[in-house]
Amino acid sequence: MHQMTIDELHAFMRDAFPQVADEFVVEELRDHGLVVRQDVHDRHLRPGRTISGPTMFGLTDVAIYLAILSRIGPVALAVTTNCSIDFMHKPGAGLPLRADARILKLGRQLAVGDVLIRSGEAPEPVARASLTYAIPPRQA
Amino acid sequence: MHQMTIDELHAFMRDAFPQVADEFVVEELRDHGLVVRQDVHDRHLRPGRTISGPTMFGLTDVAIYLAILSRIGPVALAVTTNCSIDFMHKPGAGLPLRADARILKLGRQLAVGDVLIRSGEAPEPVARASLTYAIPPRQA
Amino acid sequence: MHQMTIDELHAFMRDAFPQVADEFVVEELRDHGLVVRQDVHDRHLRPGRTISGPTMFGLTDVAIYLAILSRIGPVALAVTTNCSIDFMHKPGAGLPLRADARILKLGRQLAVGDVLIRSGEAPEPVARASLTYAIPPRQA
Amino acid sequence: MHQMTIDELHAFMRDAFPQVADEFVVEELRDHGLVVRQDVHDRHLRPGRTISGPTMFGLTDVAIYLAILSRIGPVALAVTTNCSIDFMHKPGAGLPLRADARILKLGRQLAVGDVLIRSGEAPEPVARASLTYAIPPRQA
Repeated sequence: MHQMTIDELHAFMRDAFPQVADEFVVEELRDHGLVVRQDVHDRHLRPGRTISGPTMFGLTDVAIYLAILSRIGPVALAVTTNCSIDFMHKPGAGLPLRADARILKLGRQLAVGDVLIRSGEAPEPVARASLTYAIPPRQA
Repeated sequence: MHQMTIDELHAFMRDAFPQVADEFVVEELRDHGLVVRQDVHDRHLRPGRTISGPTMFGLTDVAIYLAILSRIGPVALAVTTNCSIDFMHKPGAGLPLRADARILKLGRQLAVGDVLIRSGEAPEPVARASLTYAIPPRQA
Repeated sequence: MHQMTIDELHAFMRDAFPQVADEFVVEELRDHGLVVRQDVHDRHLRPGRTISGPTMFGLTDVAIYLAILSRIGPVALAVTTNCSIDFMHKPGAGLPLRADARILKLGRQLAVGDVLIRSGEAPEPVARASLTYAIPPRQA
Repeated sequence: MHQMTIDELHAFMRDAFPQVADEFVVEELRDHGLVVRQDVHDRHLRPGRTISGPTMFGLTDVAIYLAILSRIGPVALAVTTNCSIDFMHKPGAGLPLRADARILKLGRQLAVGDVLIRSGEAPEPVARASLTYAIPPRQA
């Protein structure tokens, strides 16, 4: 079912997104999704030691993107068309974030997935998001 | 953890929403959510025998509402403030819909949940939605 | 710029959606959108004389759908793929709703628009929504 | 109607968000919103010279935040609870972004606004977003 392994996803990231690839580690590859860890550094924080919204948005975006790639292979051009994100709790400033992403639809033109973000080892999610991607036509 | 049983949820619906209560059956009550079935009738259909968007929106809304009630008790006044819904596949016109709702946050002022809607017995969801509710202040 | 007049939009609705066409009146056709009025009847109300969420969802859906049709002509098959709606104020139970819809993107595959819903003559919106539609391939 | 001038908004940003304040310039303050410009640098770009999603998310978030502050005064604690964003066109890599933000609801507990992002001088928006903020209780 998967077209790419964890190692291949990491290699793809280093190649396609060298400026951010080091921040994201795929910890687990599942049938319908994957788990990505992001370690949090000072540059991700806002005053009050809150993790910035763009940081959490970026993590959800990367997680669904990688989950799609793991299923369709290295297509660098899938484009986010919509994201709806709910920020529910303040994550711990010094703790890693983990995005648990699952693909809900993988159509020819559109893919839809959702993500729960957790902070450290706490089971309750701090944020949730759903995202839609436009998939470019695949050549025969 | 639950404040209401399935029977109490059904009784609440008949009392508070008599015009629609008969359409919705709580099939299963879980730790963090519940499953609601809606049988589909002609009035829910559009030309081409598509189930109408408002029907599916209404089902997600009822499902999260009941899931919140099952946790906080019969508070008729919780109000939907946001819904983001993705329509992914066309449901079968003659098949019941089932909404699998889970509560992700149950705060003092806001509750957040998400829903997968499935059609008949197919495992793949036809729609997903996330909803936010404002909870009125609870008197001591 | 428009492919259909107000009369043609009304005729299309009567033809394609006979069961709901009478509820919606296009009051104004603009460069980038239109205004649709919906008169509110008892069947649209919930206890407390609140207009139901599905009613407002349905109005936003119809308004963007008609706005797209007015630009691309009578293509009955455009399909809603996403709607994010915010309910901001309680509308007046006896007052008509007006949806002010504008098209923000009209691509080959996807159209995006947003809507403000107002109640009666009050200027402040009671709800807002943004919607995405998948447009079927148009034959040459 | 406004509680803060453009200069006061800039001073607030430098004080509260020193690490990002320089990126955002309020160009215009309006009755129901404002326009914020963000100059785009290499760190905002992705391969293919696309402006990153987190950059555009961050701009919408700052724009609505400042629009709320301009109306309620310098309350550093308003918190984003939801954002739904549509990416519609690829912005020009070397061109500034402008966020045109308007407040649609300013309640005691929740504020809702929406944003159009434009690229350079082109009139057609490249992205749209709607956001909800929780406003902390204001002391008497």
